[in-house]
Amino acid sequence: MTSTLPIVRQPVDRRGSTEVTPTLATPRLELDVSVAVDRFVRLAAALPGTGVHYAVKANPHPRLLAELAAVGCRFDVASPAEVRAAVRAGADPASLVYSNPVKRRDHVAEATALGVRLFVVDSLPETVKLAEAAPGCQVLSRLSTSGEGSDWPLSRKYGCSPEEAVRILLTADRLGLEVAGLSFHVGSQQRDPEAWAAPIVSAARVFALLRDNGLSPWLLDLGGGFPASYDGGCPPVTAYGEAIDRRLDDAFGDHRPETIVEPGRGIVGDAGTLVSTVIGVVHRGGVRWVFLDAGVFTGLVETLDEAIRYRLQTTARGAETGPCVLAGPTCDSADVLYEQQMVQLPLDLAEGDEVRLQSAGAYTTCYSSVGFNGFAPLPTRITGPVAGVS
Amino acid sequence: MTSTLPIVRQPVDRRGSTEVTPTLATPRLELDVSVAVDRFVRLAAALPGTGVHYAVKANPHPRLLAELAAVGCRFDVASPAEVRAAVRAGADPASLVYSNPVKRRDHVAEATALGVRLFVVDSLPETVKLAEAAPGCQVLSRLSTSGEGSDWPLSRKYGCSPEEAVRILLTADRLGLEVAGLSFHVGSQQRDPEAWAAPIVSAARVFALLRDNGLSPWLLDLGGGFPASYDGGCPPVTAYGEAIDRRLDDAFGDHRPETIVEPGRGIVGDAGTLVSTVIGVVHRGGVRWVFLDAGVFTGLVETLDEAIRYRLQTTARGAETGPCVLAGPTCDSADVLYEQQMVQLPLDLAEGDEVRLQSAGAYTTCYSSVGFNGFAPLPTRITGPVAGVS
Repeated sequence: MTSTLPIVRQPVDRRGSTEVTPTLATPRLELDVSVAVDRFVRLAAALPGTGVHYAVKANPHPRLLAELAAVGCRFDVASPAEVRAAVRAGADPASLVYSNPVKRRDHVAEATALGVRLFVVDSLPETVKLAEAAPGCQVLSRLSTSGEGSDWPLSRKYGCSPEEAVRILLTADRLGLEVAGLSFHVGSQQRDPEAWAAPIVSAARVFALLRDNGLSPWLLDLGGGFPASYDGGCPPVTAYGEAIDRRLDDAFGDHRPETIVEPGRGIVGDAGTLVSTVIGVVHRGGVRWVFLDAGVFTGLVETLDEAIRYRLQTTARGAETGPCVLAGPTCDSADVLYEQQMVQLPLDLAEGDEVRLQSAGAYTTCYSSVGFNGFAPLPTRITGPVAGVS
Repeated sequence: MTSTLPIVRQPVDRRGSTEVTPTLATPRLELDVSVAVDRFVRLAAALPGTGVHYAVKANPHPRLLAELAAVGCRFDVASPAEVRAAVRAGADPASLVYSNPVKRRDHVAEATALGVRLFVVDSLPETVKLAEAAPGCQVLSRLSTSGEGSDWPLSRKYGCSPEEAVRILLTADRLGLEVAGLSFHVGSQQRDPEAWAAPIVSAARVFALLRDNGLSPWLLDLGGGFPASYDGGCPPVTAYGEAIDRRLDDAFGDHRPETIVEPGRGIVGDAGTLVSTVIGVVHRGGVRWVFLDAGVFTGLVETLDEAIRYRLQTTARGAETGPCVLAGPTCDSADVLYEQQMVQLPLDLAEGDEVRLQSAGAYTTCYSSVGFNGFAPLPTRITGPVAGVS
């Protein structure tokens, strides 16, 4: 769908853009920035009083960042390159949250020099690193979560227990850092609005313990996880807002902290369509294999283990559909998108037909390989109401 | 190990190179081209009379291609970009094998215009495509194999049955194409030299059926699969040569065709070392997590499902080792290298220590993302005896 919101126009910096304006060659990502702006506005409305920080890693296209900055969106960054991209888009570096919990020391120093103030950690060594490389900065400690209900769970790699978070933040205070509070992440493409409930309860307990120790934590980063419209559907964003608001009230009462969220997929997922062309249809042992000119190495990494299931549209006209395996164009055996759970596509689908993967704006262009098999990285074509803005 | 072979010097075209000469920043791939040349010479010696076509997709570095071409190596390509890279390196386009079984039609035409003659197919539609886009070209039909014994099996995506191969090649002949013969691939990093036995028997049967139909197939492409020296070891290349020679004799007798192989990993795997730096060591629930500045999105895609296990060296000095999870630097939960089967690393390993992943020359730089999380793609630094050649 296309937003009808009035867009605030601003000069856009195109450095670093990989836009393909004149050509309609495939594969390409068509990015309608107005849809991302619409998703930002809806999420902000569903979470009143909560700061929305778009996760740049999901899609760092400069036009997207500039349009989001122009309507008041803030940013979540993971590296100095993302800090610079956000600043070029118009962001105040002091408004950024640097949420990568384990960072290169030189990156911490570089981000600090660029004006970043707020960092996430989830261990004592990282806290010491911050004290040394970003003295006096603000610190969030990241709690681990179960990841249940999410299509792309994050539980193993990052996060600490509530007890460890207390220890980390008391240490941060002793090392002269500003204890901002906590963060957590319920897992990407989270289909259950109640997934925030348990970590909010844990967070309230940690906040109380910190107050008992004389600290004044003031910020809770509720992370990302807000879904895009993939196959299988998801609740409306208002359901997330209501569930989170109720849980915050229940857990914090009069001590409710400032809150922020870090949506990536929930803002840019629905804004993109990956347009590919069928390069071959082959039958192997009675199974139809459809080969596209886009695959795992040109942006569709999230189909690995068939975790993310994009909705498909085609230019084939036949009403009758049947199952098929969907595969990418490289010689690599891993370059198969959907095989265990085949997709339904028209039986008359043939070489030259387009297959459009819907809601593919997040984690595609940025996941693309530099050129495996000699195939170029996935380019972006800006479409929609703001396409003419320069 | 470093080769002591005399290297034939040739001017090297550096277009497209991502070399990082002056800096020793990590992560980087150190590529000793003399080792790749040594592996080519050993493989050619182990398979006398068999043409060796290096699979450009494994690592397309221009210096590597030029040095291989200079010592008589030929190339296996998957796209027009790889054709051009091979030709720039000094290859005769008519000597290339274009082995991607399902190709974009415009790529077939472009490769033909560049002088490519020999293409692989595995279906009737692709055969018709060749007849239309590359009239009169030479055709190999690819047989499916079991993939057993390989660390990165290829069995599902490509290949046809012997009966289909006969039908495909008879059709190719009727469409005015030159029936060259068959190809197959036993799976990448194949640890069993006898894996070639069954497909060679199938190929001999297809060749006999084609001769019965009045055709004169003359070429058998034995594919790749020759291993690099990862953790777990593998037989010497001479064992592969002996097993393949014996099976060819047994199956073909007096009708032995010309043969070629398509090694990628077997030539460039051992020539590369991925040098990374520890950015953090964290204990999570009693488990040690070591975070590197290189990960799945900076070249280490083959660690997904922990399929390829690189041997590790570190600058940590302690003799005592213990298990740990090895993780990459991006915020992504998928960016974990080894967790189910942890690696053994020194207990005193700390931030700033180097971790060198051995035999990482294949499928690393080319798999690298364009810049996920704002981290640059994996660069190459040429090392070894030919480092000074320009």
